[in-house]
Order: sequence, then C-alpha cells, then structure tokens
Amino acid sequence: MAEEKPYLTGRTYIFRLPKGKDLLESLAGFCHDNQVKCGIVNVIGAVENATISIFDQDKKKYDKKVIAEPLEVVSLMGNISIQDNRPCVHAHVMLANQEGQVFGGHLLPGTKIFIAEAYIQELVGEPKVRRMDKVTKVSLWS
Amino acid sequence: MAEEKPYLTGRTYIFRLPKGKDLLESLAGFCHDNQVKCGIVNVIGAVENATISIFDQDKKKYDKKVIAEPLEVVSLMGNISIQDNRPCVHAHVMLANQEGQVFGGHLLPGTKIFIAEAYIQELVGEPKVRRMDKVTKVSLWS
Amino acid sequence: MAEEKPYLTGRTYIFRLPKGKDLLESLAGFCHDNQVKCGIVNVIGAVENATISIFDQDKKKYDKKVIAEPLEVVSLMGNISIQDNRPCVHAHVMLANQEGQVFGGHLLPGTKIFIAEAYIQELVGEPKVRRMDKVTKVSLWS
Repeated sequence: MAEEKPYLTGRTYIFRLPKGKDLLESLAGFCHDNQVKCGIVNVIGAVENATISIFDQDKKKYDKKVIAEPLEVVSLMGNISIQDNRPCVHAHVMLANQEGQVFGGHLLPGTKIFIAEAYIQELVGEPKVRRMDKVTKVSLWS
Repeated sequence: MAEEKPYLTGRTYIFRLPKGKDLLESLAGFCHDNQVKCGIVNVIGAVENATISIFDQDKKKYDKKVIAEPLEVVSLMGNISIQDNRPCVHAHVMLANQEGQVFGGHLLPGTKIFIAEAYIQELVGEPKVRRMDKVTKVSLWS
Repeated sequence: MAEEKPYLTGRTYIFRLPKGKDLLESLAGFCHDNQVKCGIVNVIGAVENATISIFDQDKKKYDKKVIAEPLEVVSLMGNISIQDNRPCVHAHVMLANQEGQVFGGHLLPGTKIFIAEAYIQELVGEPKVRRMDKVTKVSLWS
C-alpha cells in the first residue's frame, strides 16, 4: 500500500438540511457552495422515500432500488472528494421503515428529506479525485 | 439554505460507558457532567435489551419498540445539542440479535448497556438548540 | 463513572484500502505501519465475502458467521487501541447483499475487500489498552 499522507482537519459543520429537498443533492450542493473538497459526512434523520443501489460485483453494474415509503435514516456514512472538478459525496445509508424492515446501500438522488441532521468534517490536504476504474467499473480514488 | 458558520473542534473523548446503565442516559449524563453542549457521538458495543422508535411521518408520532433480548450495537450515530437548557443526545442505532435479525431506529431510554465504547467530539461555537417544530411535530434545531 | 481525560486530535487519514486484501487485517496493518495507537475508524465500500460474529452474552462466547457472497459495506464504525503491545482495531459492520438482506456484527478476519474507502482519526493522549475482562469474557479497555 502506497504511503498515505495525513490530512489536517479543516472547517466543521453541524446543521439541518432543508425538508423536501433531495438528500444527496443537498449534501453535494452544500459542499459546492462552501467549497468543501475533501472530508467526511454523517447524517441521521428521516426521509419520505429513498433511492439506493447495491453494486453487482460480477456484472459490474449498480442494481437500483426505489423505496416508496417513509424511512428513518439510521446511519449515513460518507466522504467528500472531487469528481469532474466538483465536490462529490459518496455515501452509504442504512434505512428502516415503519414495520421495522431495514434497507442498506449506496445513496442515490431520489431520496426526499423529511429531517436530516448533518455533520461535515472538512479535511485539508490534496483532495482525492474520483476516476472510472477499469477493473471494478466503479469511480474510485486514483 | 441559510449560510452555516463552521465550528471548531473542541475536546475529544474515547471511553467505555458503565455496564448495566442506560445507554442514552449515560451519554447525556456524560455530556452534562463535562458540559459538552455541542458535538457528535458514535458508539459500538452490545446491550442487554433496547428501546427504539420510528417516527410515523403521517400520524406525527413515534412508534415505540421494546426489544427484550441481547443485541449488538452495530452502529450508534448521534449528535449533541441543547434542549431545555441541558445537553441532549439525539442518536440513531442499528442493532443485531443472536439470530442475525437487525433493528434500526431512534434510541430511547430503556436500553441497558452490556459493553459500550463511545467516541465524542465536542464542537465549539454557538450550540444548536432543539425546539418543537410545528410542521413535523419533532424537536428540531431552530 | 471515572473522570475521562480528553484527547487531542492527531493525524487524519482518508484513503483506499487495497482490493483483494483482508479488511480487518488491512486496517490493523495500516495502524501498525503508521503507529496509530489510538483513534477511530470508519469505512464504506464493498467486500467479496465477510466473517462477522455476534457475542452470546449468556454463554460468554462469540457466534461466528461466514457470509460467502458479495456485500456492500453500509457502515463500518470502529476504534483503535492497544492489545498485546500492538494497535488493535475493534470494528462493527453493517452489510447488505444483492437481494437487500442485511447482516450486522463484529468484524473478523475473513472479509475480502472489493472496495474500501477508510477514514482514520488519530487521537493523541494515553492510548486505551485492551485486556480480558473477567465478568464479560470480552477484551475491554481497562
């Protein structure tokens, strides 16, 4: 493994994302507006519906799943890096519905915020850059 | 979205919570004793039982669920703010039982610690304050 | 509860772990190579298979579970301390398979990385030391 250079902690944010907006797009928009180019993100809250995907490692494609019901965001764990010259949020979520059924995967646009309390820790240093990886067919840090 | 002011990172704690005590009350008690008024919290461990809730977004009320068996705390992700002039811990948990069944939701009192390893990162700045929101009927950062 | 002394934040890392390697061993190896003796760790990604355990609180033993299929790492939440004079990573994971079934527990060796994006925050202060606890039969911070 290549030697990793440590980052410095930069700005720290804790805030509520607006009700009714898209969860992933709101996070990416916040990072763009504040020029957070590298960091980590956590969210807890609830959404009115959700769109997630699970990567099919054999077929090298994402299986998309739309969940058309209210859900708790039990955890959202993610990171911020640069893709196509813009801040990109890569986040995985664990969701639970009213019946206690749980769903987990990669967060996609198509997830409407009911309540979202976010924590963002900016990291200062060389931002990671995502590029399509030929082996996995996933956009990875090069 | 209103412009968000960044926080500074304050004190950082990593410690074990006492066996047999209530998980949520122990976290809130720690924050009160140490006057941590703003921050984030993570816990992994195990509990002897648990009480969680999932918010019913239509009926605007919490559905409470008591799980009367030993569980792993797969993740606890939460934040610390002020409610009624005291530190308040808002945390979501993902739990797994011996059979591999999982449960996720909003952590309530009534969750007895078997083992709990906590991480608290204090944030320094204007603490968030929770007040009842008229639209969602949830206590939110104003 | 004994008074807890705060830690200082040390080095911060955000990086990709190598495809094909063992997830837990790679994290522990990174901490050993960089002499990270105290801190927290988060990972999101995907694995080719997984080995987890859930502690049986009555029988005081770990029930091991091997999951022989590709999985998303929806969350990995963990901490770094010292055991037997080496950095030790204690991590809990939530995993989801292609059918949307989820699995959660204590991460063990026997979990092969497909993609793993890790965040490590070093904490500076007296490192926690794990020793076998007589009551729980678990290796705990003394």
